[in-house]
Amino acid sequence: MTPDQTPTSSEKPDVAEIEARAASYDIEEAFPEEDFPGVLLRLVTDAITEGDMARARALFLDQHYADAADIIERMQPDDRSQLVLALGRDLDPDILPALDEEIQDQVLNMMGVSGVAAAIEALDSDDAVAIIEQLDEDERRRVIQALPAEDRAVIEQALAYPEYSAGRMMQRELIAVPEFWTVGDTLSYLRSTQDDLPETFYEVFVVDLRHHPVGRVSPARLLRAQTETSLRDILDKDVEPIPATMDQEEVAMTFRDRDWVTAMVVDDDGRLIGCITVDDIVDVIDEEAEDDMLRLGGVTDSDIFRAVWGTVRARFGWLFINLGTAMLAASVIGLFEGTIERVVALAVLMPVVAGMGGNAGTQTLTVTVRALAMKELTSSNARRVIGKELVVGLANGLMFAGMAGAVSYFWFKTPMIGAVLACAMVVNLVVAGLAGILIPLTLDRLDIDPAVSSGVFLTTVTDIVGFFAFLGLASVFLI
Amino acid sequence: MTPDQTPTSSEKPDVAEIEARAASYDIEEAFPEEDFPGVLLRLVTDAITEGDMARARALFLDQHYADAADIIERMQPDDRSQLVLALGRDLDPDILPALDEEIQDQVLNMMGVSGVAAAIEALDSDDAVAIIEQLDEDERRRVIQALPAEDRAVIEQALAYPEYSAGRMMQRELIAVPEFWTVGDTLSYLRSTQDDLPETFYEVFVVDLRHHPVGRVSPARLLRAQTETSLRDILDKDVEPIPATMDQEEVAMTFRDRDWVTAMVVDDDGRLIGCITVDDIVDVIDEEAEDDMLRLGGVTDSDIFRAVWGTVRARFGWLFINLGTAMLAASVIGLFEGTIERVVALAVLMPVVAGMGGNAGTQTLTVTVRALAMKELTSSNARRVIGKELVVGLANGLMFAGMAGAVSYFWFKTPMIGAVLACAMVVNLVVAGLAGILIPLTLDRLDIDPAVSSGVFLTTVTDIVGFFAFLGLASVFLI
Repeated sequence: MTPDQTPTSSEKPDVAEIEARAASYDIEEAFPEEDFPGVLLRLVTDAITEGDMARARALFLDQHYADAADIIERMQPDDRSQLVLALGRDLDPDILPALDEEIQDQVLNMMGVSGVAAAIEALDSDDAVAIIEQLDEDERRRVIQALPAEDRAVIEQALAYPEYSAGRMMQRELIAVPEFWTVGDTLSYLRSTQDDLPETFYEVFVVDLRHHPVGRVSPARLLRAQTETSLRDILDKDVEPIPATMDQEEVAMTFRDRDWVTAMVVDDDGRLIGCITVDDIVDVIDEEAEDDMLRLGGVTDSDIFRAVWGTVRARFGWLFINLGTAMLAASVIGLFEGTIERVVALAVLMPVVAGMGGNAGTQTLTVTVRALAMKELTSSNARRVIGKELVVGLANGLMFAGMAGAVSYFWFKTPMIGAVLACAMVVNLVVAGLAGILIPLTLDRLDIDPAVSSGVFLTTVTDIVGFFAFLGLASVFLI
Repeated sequence: MTPDQTPTSSEKPDVAEIEARAASYDIEEAFPEEDFPGVLLRLVTDAITEGDMARARALFLDQHYADAADIIERMQPDDRSQLVLALGRDLDPDILPALDEEIQDQVLNMMGVSGVAAAIEALDSDDAVAIIEQLDEDERRRVIQALPAEDRAVIEQALAYPEYSAGRMMQRELIAVPEFWTVGDTLSYLRSTQDDLPETFYEVFVVDLRHHPVGRVSPARLLRAQTETSLRDILDKDVEPIPATMDQEEVAMTFRDRDWVTAMVVDDDGRLIGCITVDDIVDVIDEEAEDDMLRLGGVTDSDIFRAVWGTVRARFGWLFINLGTAMLAASVIGLFEGTIERVVALAVLMPVVAGMGGNAGTQTLTVTVRALAMKELTSSNARRVIGKELVVGLANGLMFAGMAGAVSYFWFKTPMIGAVLACAMVVNLVVAGLAGILIPLTLDRLDIDPAVSSGVFLTTVTDIVGFFAFLGLASVFLI
């Protein structure tokens, strides 16, 4: 339906026009002040509310899969179910890998085993594996059984590799040619076997007779070379094959350092079995950075799209541990009840010492966790960085001791309170700096993710040391 | 020098062999248990210590620029200076963009104006701009003057765009062909003008007569198409040009959503003026995620390679603000000195209430900051998410109120202390949930980066509310 048909063909000219616009990117011009998926979301939701599923489908179907995924994520759960059911097999499979995990689960459930199997068949092997991974054991088995034999074998081979490994990330579709070929041989191969080859590829891989990778040639270079040139003369020897068992975080780091667009994945015998493209790496880097950030904040994953009860459960564990450590710190205060009873000012000031230690320690901790993730902190410079944190803690400790001591002296008019606060502050800021680097370093050595657990240990240390130093010194010098 | 020459040509056969290995990636096989840059670092450092700069150069020069950058970063500052001076113009310019900012500054200073200008001439325009940006006003001017006129114009145009914009990130080197060409025309163009074109390219851009982008064709598709095919028939219309003024964070988000390998950058008139490749996006995503994480942790940037005094200064500001808010919270406790004097147990338990609020609020805050950065939290779902956080806060509040109340009852044998603690806990956890989402949302609306400042506001709120609720309720019901 085009806008000029509108007056005769519809009683709602506005809707028809909006629909026509929505089918192309013109909607951005029609509503320049609003974000595009936001407008489309409203139009689709309105259609669903009015029960006009045909219109909802029409609005939705022509969108880029990234926008479509965005809209599905932002919908109310009920609307989402109705839309997914109305779309049926017309749901673009490329939408699935772009969805947030929580929402992906819901959509996959609605699609049923045969729907999921059909979608997986249509996806590249790396995306297919990413979807299959999300299913529980039983669904996974049923979906795999519903696949054609060839796809099934590919998926099962990928699943044989550990989770978060290169073997799971890679796609099997690639172009590999023998090193003794010429540019001309390669060009005719690419032109002749159009159907078996992946639709897009960014590099042609060159292998030897054992199928070990020996180099890569970009299509750009193939296009420019003379046809009689041997591949050996133009190939780029920056191969560095990725073992299929390598962890995805390490794969991502290598990509970033080398500015690669594709990487070659090899099996235990060094044979080329797949490739990883940089668009998947972008997702991994994003996820790994997100994981570190969220874990430091005490949450296991982004729960923005999760239902209330799931969110409560996800956050409970961390808070429970924190209740334990808070009670531990409280018991340290309990040791000095008699001292506090005599000098109540101590109760007023003690959270300042503990809090400053926690904040200073968190600064060091954050930098350390990030440096460990980036492999910038290694055995070769650990000692130097620890020494530096010690000095930084001492310097900041002395400055803030002076300030906090002065404030508390003017507040409570007792010089000794200021002196005790200042000493406790120095002690706690030095300890905080050391704890901020030693705790994550130790966890990393023990192969425990420092982002997950460092925070609890750190605040426990800074609370206990802060309270103990301040109240302990006070009970010696003030009573 | 090859290993078999060693016995006759050198008195130190071990060194010679290691050197020969170091010149290729064989070093990884020679020292399989250690990381490759670590071993090379040791060898280079040893050479420098022995004053054998020729050996240090030889060891260093054949390395991949990513490994070379890694080694430079990990060196002691003195060794680094010696190495960079010994390398002179032989320093691979590609190493520069791969260096951490702090280290990059040092190296650029050592290279001098003419050295930097020579390096910039050799780099792609996007990398060149990234290096120029790091220089201070005066150095920048002198380096730009030392450049050939053509490079100077490119750099100056790029610098005219705002920092962190697509115009700064893009490279000018690209391949654009008119839409009325055939595949054959394009192939002969690519083959004929080898010298003017960028060395590698992942996509050929198709433009109309006004030089507006109308599509893209991958070299892979060009290779496979018949030469007489018109570009119009095979081009991919997923263009969505990036305005040169778009912020790099938004550019990165678009890349990630669309799984692009290259993007077309256009000027105000919609003309194609540059392209951005995904390897630069990988860096942006990494930086943006790092920024958010570090800011939440109270540090402005990764200071792992920074000297002591710079680190102290960088962390001082945040701690200073925290001292202020800690004193504010202390003054709330000060209001209840009389109450604490009569029931010292309150001093023991009050940090538990404040701390649990801080932790619960940080969980919500972290998820919210991340969701805002990912554009998952928008005006269309803000109300729903706020409602959810309210319920989650209430649910966790009730559970932890029960637990904390019970523990404190058994500890102090006073039912009313347990009851007061429980009530204060519920209040503070609900407030923490709301503050955890409302503070970053409000800052975001005011166009202030929520990652930078949310944390201070949040802990101030949870400390003050925690102390006030607990001590206030106690002074009503316990005294």
